[in-house]
Amino acid sequence: MRKELLLECQTRISPHIHRTPILTSRLIDALAETEILFKCENFQKAGAYKIRGATNAILQLDQKERERGVVTHSSGNFAQALSLAATNMGIQASIVMPRTAPEVKKSAVIEYGGKIIECAPTLEARKETAEKIEQETGAVFIHPSNDSNVIIGQGTACMELLEDHADLNAIIAPVGGGGLIAGTSLSASYFGKNCKVFGGEPFAVDDAYRSLQSGKIESNETTDTIADGLKTQLGDKSFPIIQKHVDSIIRVTEKEILEAMRLVWERMKIIIEPSSAVALAAVLREKEKFKNEKVGIIISGGNIDVKSLSF
Amino acid sequence: MRKELLLECQTRISPHIHRTPILTSRLIDALAETEILFKCENFQKAGAYKIRGATNAILQLDQKERERGVVTHSSGNFAQALSLAATNMGIQASIVMPRTAPEVKKSAVIEYGGKIIECAPTLEARKETAEKIEQETGAVFIHPSNDSNVIIGQGTACMELLEDHADLNAIIAPVGGGGLIAGTSLSASYFGKNCKVFGGEPFAVDDAYRSLQSGKIESNETTDTIADGLKTQLGDKSFPIIQKHVDSIIRVTEKEILEAMRLVWERMKIIIEPSSAVALAAVLREKEKFKNEKVGIIISGGNIDVKSLSF
Repeated sequence: MRKELLLECQTRISPHIHRTPILTSRLIDALAETEILFKCENFQKAGAYKIRGATNAILQLDQKERERGVVTHSSGNFAQALSLAATNMGIQASIVMPRTAPEVKKSAVIEYGGKIIECAPTLEARKETAEKIEQETGAVFIHPSNDSNVIIGQGTACMELLEDHADLNAIIAPVGGGGLIAGTSLSASYFGKNCKVFGGEPFAVDDAYRSLQSGKIESNETTDTIADGLKTQLGDKSFPIIQKHVDSIIRVTEKEILEAMRLVWERMKIIIEPSSAVALAAVLREKEKFKNEKVGIIISGGNIDVKSLSF
Repeated sequence: MRKELLLECQTRISPHIHRTPILTSRLIDALAETEILFKCENFQKAGAYKIRGATNAILQLDQKERERGVVTHSSGNFAQALSLAATNMGIQASIVMPRTAPEVKKSAVIEYGGKIIECAPTLEARKETAEKIEQETGAVFIHPSNDSNVIIGQGTACMELLEDHADLNAIIAPVGGGGLIAGTSLSASYFGKNCKVFGGEPFAVDDAYRSLQSGKIESNETTDTIADGLKTQLGDKSFPIIQKHVDSIIRVTEKEILEAMRLVWERMKIIIEPSSAVALAAVLREKEKFKNEKVGIIISGGNIDVKSLSF
């Protein structure tokens, strides 16, 4: 039944998103001693895969729901994606963001037509503020990752990759809230041929790794990682899918993330964000596991604050 | 007669180089109020268009010359390109570099199989050292820009762009030693339909602009620009072509270069080097000139020292 959900989703969202390119690098293949296909969602609309899930969720609202708008809490790529997806369909998106969020992220949301509602910088304040908007305006809440329509939408990146390369032995994606890895693992199980799925996660925020060990959703005590998209934790929608379909989570150090990101910037001449580099870092760290295989990596996004880089 | 030189060159070098992609950005088009096609030589082998000219020059050596090897003086992209092109054909490349050149550039030459000969950091020392190697080893000297085979080779990037977009009204390329702009202007004159060619140059090193004004090759007194590939001056091979075929040189400030570079990194998610950003900066500066046209920009390369960026 889920296989059809993915196929229907692809048909539904494909007019609204980019089919992103799949790139390769002979030098990185030589370093990793394997063949890597990079699915480049950094070239996706709004700079990340998040528009897939956001679009899928919005397209399934009925007319009355559309009129009332949508609301989410996110300070990252989902905030931008939902704003753009909603604006494109003439729907109002309200985005709850901590007032401490970087200006560059706030500007991006406004540029894409979203309406920002600021709150205190705690997870609780985010949830409360979003609920308040839901109640006051009747807007439909769409969670950035723990939502079945969002998870199915994110899975279409992996579907496209497998359509072009059906013989992949493994696919690696970064793990934050779990929407991408859950969707990816569903796609791999339905459209792959014995294609294993691995998550990449920073040691600093290894809640998903620990969740798979303990069998319950774990949280992070600190969030001190350069991979700012991966600080969130799994949810009750994403976790069971991950438990069922993900082979294992590979943890990487901050140094390995930075080195993998620099490698891609330098050799492939494309901008990827630190969270995306986690997946390549995982492959490079566990070379033996992937040796002489055919491996897909989901480059999740390319949104970095270029102005903060010093040249 | 020159038209055939370009066609023959393309046939000669195409098995050895990438046909680079042509990218677009709706946001940058909106900002520039024109349609821009970016010919992305940052995705070229060795990260820049230079491999085109280097390959063309090397492929025209006879067997005895090949055995004696090639020599050039360059601390930039041509050093890497000649090293790679020579190595690929089993030829020794000797690269004269100032001993003050950054380690990252020296490592790249060595990685591509070139042999570095260090000299004092003056133009005179470079030339003398290269001549000495020529005399001692019989190696064939190939100038990074002031060489007819090199100029023709660099022109093939523009040829490919016009093959795909025959209706371009204007093409803009950065101007350093003049090899790229000379080759580009030849291609535009033979394969374009009233396609004007403009050079982009930093105010800080506006020797080409002044050369076109005075009618003789001018030098730069200082070289204080972020566009490190554009510090060199025109030569007796490139200058007459530029005089004949280039419409004008547009000068840009350092701030405009940096802003154009950040715009491409941020919006297109691709790494371009500061010298490449000069061409886009020129289009953005002279908006009225290019308004509602169809404009080609040669993105000359993507070689930056990623390790020097602070995140």
